[in-house]
Amino acid sequence: MASRKLTRADLREAADKYKNWGKWGPADEIGTLNYTRADDIVAAARLVKKGKVISLALDFDQRGPQGARSSYPALGRINPLHTMLRTGTDAYAGALDHRGIRAADDMVVMPLQCGTQWDGLGHVFYENSMWNGYDCREVTSQGAQKCGIEKTKNKMVGRGVFLDVPRALGVNCLEDGHAITGADLDRTAEAEGVVVTRGDFVIVRTGQMEAKLAAGSWDGYPGGDAPGFAFETLAWIQRTELAALASDTWGCEVRPNESEPGIVQPWHWITIPIMGLTMGEIFYVKELAEDCALDGVYEFLFVAPALPITGAVGSPTNPLAIK
Amino acid sequence: MASRKLTRADLREAADKYKNWGKWGPADEIGTLNYTRADDIVAAARLVKKGKVISLALDFDQRGPQGARSSYPALGRINPLHTMLRTGTDAYAGALDHRGIRAADDMVVMPLQCGTQWDGLGHVFYENSMWNGYDCREVTSQGAQKCGIEKTKNKMVGRGVFLDVPRALGVNCLEDGHAITGADLDRTAEAEGVVVTRGDFVIVRTGQMEAKLAAGSWDGYPGGDAPGFAFETLAWIQRTELAALASDTWGCEVRPNESEPGIVQPWHWITIPIMGLTMGEIFYVKELAEDCALDGVYEFLFVAPALPITGAVGSPTNPLAIK
Amino acid sequence: MASRKLTRADLREAADKYKNWGKWGPADEIGTLNYTRADDIVAAARLVKKGKVISLALDFDQRGPQGARSSYPALGRINPLHTMLRTGTDAYAGALDHRGIRAADDMVVMPLQCGTQWDGLGHVFYENSMWNGYDCREVTSQGAQKCGIEKTKNKMVGRGVFLDVPRALGVNCLEDGHAITGADLDRTAEAEGVVVTRGDFVIVRTGQMEAKLAAGSWDGYPGGDAPGFAFETLAWIQRTELAALASDTWGCEVRPNESEPGIVQPWHWITIPIMGLTMGEIFYVKELAEDCALDGVYEFLFVAPALPITGAVGSPTNPLAIK
Amino acid sequence: MASRKLTRADLREAADKYKNWGKWGPADEIGTLNYTRADDIVAAARLVKKGKVISLALDFDQRGPQGARSSYPALGRINPLHTMLRTGTDAYAGALDHRGIRAADDMVVMPLQCGTQWDGLGHVFYENSMWNGYDCREVTSQGAQKCGIEKTKNKMVGRGVFLDVPRALGVNCLEDGHAITGADLDRTAEAEGVVVTRGDFVIVRTGQMEAKLAAGSWDGYPGGDAPGFAFETLAWIQRTELAALASDTWGCEVRPNESEPGIVQPWHWITIPIMGLTMGEIFYVKELAEDCALDGVYEFLFVAPALPITGAVGSPTNPLAIK
Repeated sequence: MASRKLTRADLREAADKYKNWGKWGPADEIGTLNYTRADDIVAAARLVKKGKVISLALDFDQRGPQGARSSYPALGRINPLHTMLRTGTDAYAGALDHRGIRAADDMVVMPLQCGTQWDGLGHVFYENSMWNGYDCREVTSQGAQKCGIEKTKNKMVGRGVFLDVPRALGVNCLEDGHAITGADLDRTAEAEGVVVTRGDFVIVRTGQMEAKLAAGSWDGYPGGDAPGFAFETLAWIQRTELAALASDTWGCEVRPNESEPGIVQPWHWITIPIMGLTMGEIFYVKELAEDCALDGVYEFLFVAPALPITGAVGSPTNPLAIK
Repeated sequence: MASRKLTRADLREAADKYKNWGKWGPADEIGTLNYTRADDIVAAARLVKKGKVISLALDFDQRGPQGARSSYPALGRINPLHTMLRTGTDAYAGALDHRGIRAADDMVVMPLQCGTQWDGLGHVFYENSMWNGYDCREVTSQGAQKCGIEKTKNKMVGRGVFLDVPRALGVNCLEDGHAITGADLDRTAEAEGVVVTRGDFVIVRTGQMEAKLAAGSWDGYPGGDAPGFAFETLAWIQRTELAALASDTWGCEVRPNESEPGIVQPWHWITIPIMGLTMGEIFYVKELAEDCALDGVYEFLFVAPALPITGAVGSPTNPLAIK
Repeated sequence: MASRKLTRADLREAADKYKNWGKWGPADEIGTLNYTRADDIVAAARLVKKGKVISLALDFDQRGPQGARSSYPALGRINPLHTMLRTGTDAYAGALDHRGIRAADDMVVMPLQCGTQWDGLGHVFYENSMWNGYDCREVTSQGAQKCGIEKTKNKMVGRGVFLDVPRALGVNCLEDGHAITGADLDRTAEAEGVVVTRGDFVIVRTGQMEAKLAAGSWDGYPGGDAPGFAFETLAWIQRTELAALASDTWGCEVRPNESEPGIVQPWHWITIPIMGLTMGEIFYVKELAEDCALDGVYEFLFVAPALPITGAVGSPTNPLAIK
Repeated sequence: MASRKLTRADLREAADKYKNWGKWGPADEIGTLNYTRADDIVAAARLVKKGKVISLALDFDQRGPQGARSSYPALGRINPLHTMLRTGTDAYAGALDHRGIRAADDMVVMPLQCGTQWDGLGHVFYENSMWNGYDCREVTSQGAQKCGIEKTKNKMVGRGVFLDVPRALGVNCLEDGHAITGADLDRTAEAEGVVVTRGDFVIVRTGQMEAKLAAGSWDGYPGGDAPGFAFETLAWIQRTELAALASDTWGCEVRPNESEPGIVQPWHWITIPIMGLTMGEIFYVKELAEDCALDGVYEFLFVAPALPITGAVGSPTNPLAIK
């Protein structure tokens, strides 16, 4: 892959090779989430052995990664803006007593992909097509008429597998530009004693988020250089039949991208619209990594419901690893 | 209770009687969620037997219950406003191609208690106090410095118990103003063959939401008359040591309230700030009710993570019953 | 006009007849606002004789016309949602003192056409074209690359002429469905002793808003039946060479529309994209009407700056009549 | 002033000295805007001699000054976020045709003091008091019950006087930390041949904004060091009886402040709550400065209506100098 840059011809070829359109019928709107079956959920629940719940969400606030220095345009992605509709100070001042109850209330303004989040299947198009061959014009200013995130409302449950790649490679953190290969993933799974199987939710650590948190600055994180999935992992994803894939970076795939100028996020061009892969980004995995390193158990029940915002192409989430 | 209206003296007495402050230490910020222990989570996971996931969330959109006719002031609670930052129609028009990727993106403006949601412990104050005796001034325009919803980020997991009260009472839907008693809850549990125990997440059906959905109008739902918990259920809640309680109405407790003029939502005055009870409202339970009626199983693994919005006094949620 | 419904052929014919494209050069983005010249502004300023300023804005708040009952879809147009970032109650509670200043701050979430507002030239398209022949694809999710409201930032100044049509016709309020003709406008001007000339800002009263305010309900106002401009006023507008036109209704033109099913707001199809006419809607003219009736002077200096929000297709405004 | 830092005792003394409470009656909510009389407006209109309109607004967009590097906390002040509800690309894609009209629509999320703006009289408190002695508790999460910006809706009209201080002092731009004195203002007025009189709207240039624009970065602008009004200008303001005062900086007064630690923006402590002075900030004066330098005329008709957002403590504005 290092030898030459991906071209549009390469993408076309990959699109032909990995296309899952029609695999779950012509009306499907959830793609690889279909891989998880009822039995898998029952089996995943059996992985709960110590009753420990680990959240993989960053808190949603003004300290989030948006707004940090980056050469990549933010295009409206701000950090969540949380404001109050009524407060305890209002209560203290006596301003609420005419209501007969002292209650606070609040609201949020948030881009759906500003923090820990799922990319829905309406998020990326291949030419004029979205997942399963739907026309991209199904996503208007009124939202996604097809593949809205609300279609996944009871789907984000299954076996979670955590792949701590830097740990397996003997480093704290992968370097920016490190393209994680299928071989890296296999080697990590092997080192951890787990096997990725059909219907799994696979969470991959690069260590980049922890490095940014340790540095006390998100500069370079949103849209900047990053370790991440190589384009060739498409084969690994197809083979493993995983339900969804998530990582601790802004955009899952390696940056700088492996593609020619004019092609940005080539892996996304294929994963979402062609394969129907739901992806998690900006997952906070530090605590999970520490727990797995300690008990040596890299599999768990994974529950990460999207907020069913009708027609949304993504969703913030509070993903839970339940061990 | 029907005989006379609750007075401030009654509330004061209840506050003394049911106060849980200090029970989990002076620094506690999550209240009754502490009742759920690791073993309970392991046991709850064992309830997953058929691998079925049922979402208890209404979709979040402009068809939500806010904005409906009501004599109760909305005070800024609008339905979620979902807008796009980039669309498939932009892609189709060629407007995104300079970016090298055809991707849609979106955002939401939403009051945190506009739809299916958790009331956090910063939501209601008793006089100048919030849960565990914190000063109400901890909730400023900058949010809740104490008891923010983010403190619950790994806590909303445990055994779920569904109490279908109208079914047990032989009706489709409880009437507005019907005050559900502890005896009603016990009778329902008995009819269903379940026992509510320490650390459970209890979801109670009144049928009101389904009636509104069937009528095609939310008029009267937000802040209107409703069936709901009687003030006397405080004793039942205290005795059962449940972790959290949820219902399918706008505000859990019975309306018109059982209190004198000038006291609104008296049950809330006690449950949240005095007992430390996290509460779920506007839960959609139709599918769960049908499933439980069919298989006769009213207990399940319940996972309903809040979005950890820092300092929030509530949170939208997509609660999952996993059977 | 009453005899038959407007067809697409009629609109095509009108588009040919009234097309101003190119009139102010191929790069023009402000249309008929060009009619107002420097001398006109000097002359308009001379109309200020008593030093009285009358605002034509409704206050922007939750009591605005959006959200009222209507068969017309709101499509995201809500009333302005004003929230505080810091408050006087925070100050009172001592919560701001660590900042060294007791200051309140606030924000707003508002559709740009939710209240008293200007329709910009990017608001309506004729087939695939916007004003001056620009491609409609210039208005993407990133806003209007052409004809954004910010292009008018120093243009909304000139002679204002107020046409109180119901007063001239001897009624309090025009009835819903009343199509105001060019003859009605001429008759009103004549009755008032004014002549509409090139570059004027013409504000037309129907009385509908006052009727809604008097009734205490906006039901039927947003997108409902209304008095308003007949399609044939296009000739009058073209002839008078006015700079901009405003009214006290939701959408200026008569409703029900004069067109066949499938054609909504036919007058808008021509005025904005074909003629380049900036239009004001939801103007509050009660005080102006009273003042003009009293002093008999129906002309004044008119200043109604748009907020220069880059790429906006409309803008809230606080229009001032200065007499 | 340089000799020692302002203390709370100094502020108390200034509060006693400059207090205008009651000057316009106990119910007044607009303070010094009362200074402008009808005759002044008539006279100001006579200043319109060449028919030129100059906007003093920065465009409102993501390129605004918020979010720039600063040691001062932003506290929720973001740049305006403009999003579309419907677009020309939707039109092009055929997605709007079922509506019968091809129309774009949009909305904005904006802090009211994020760009060119007026500080309303509810913005700053002196201890527990706001302008005219109102209790600061009048400003709750529901907005300002007293002194809301909507009270000024027909008041921002009068004679504008532009004081180009750096030009009078023979520099391009005043340095950060330069405290503009009353003598500086007098000297500037004298050099320009203007006299500031009762009821004027005075706009003062420091050159800082132009320096930031030239540098291509707002870093240091929001809440950073800046040239600005010295505390001693309070005497000048009181003497001139101006209606409102504006500048091209983030916060009008000199920074670092002239006060002891623990007192931030001491001049604001007095101007707004004690004197009742409405202030403009982040005014863009480059074009006005160039025009005045060219024609030597530093007075004009000034019209700068606030958006009457009910209960707001500030407002974006598009101020117009009409010469």
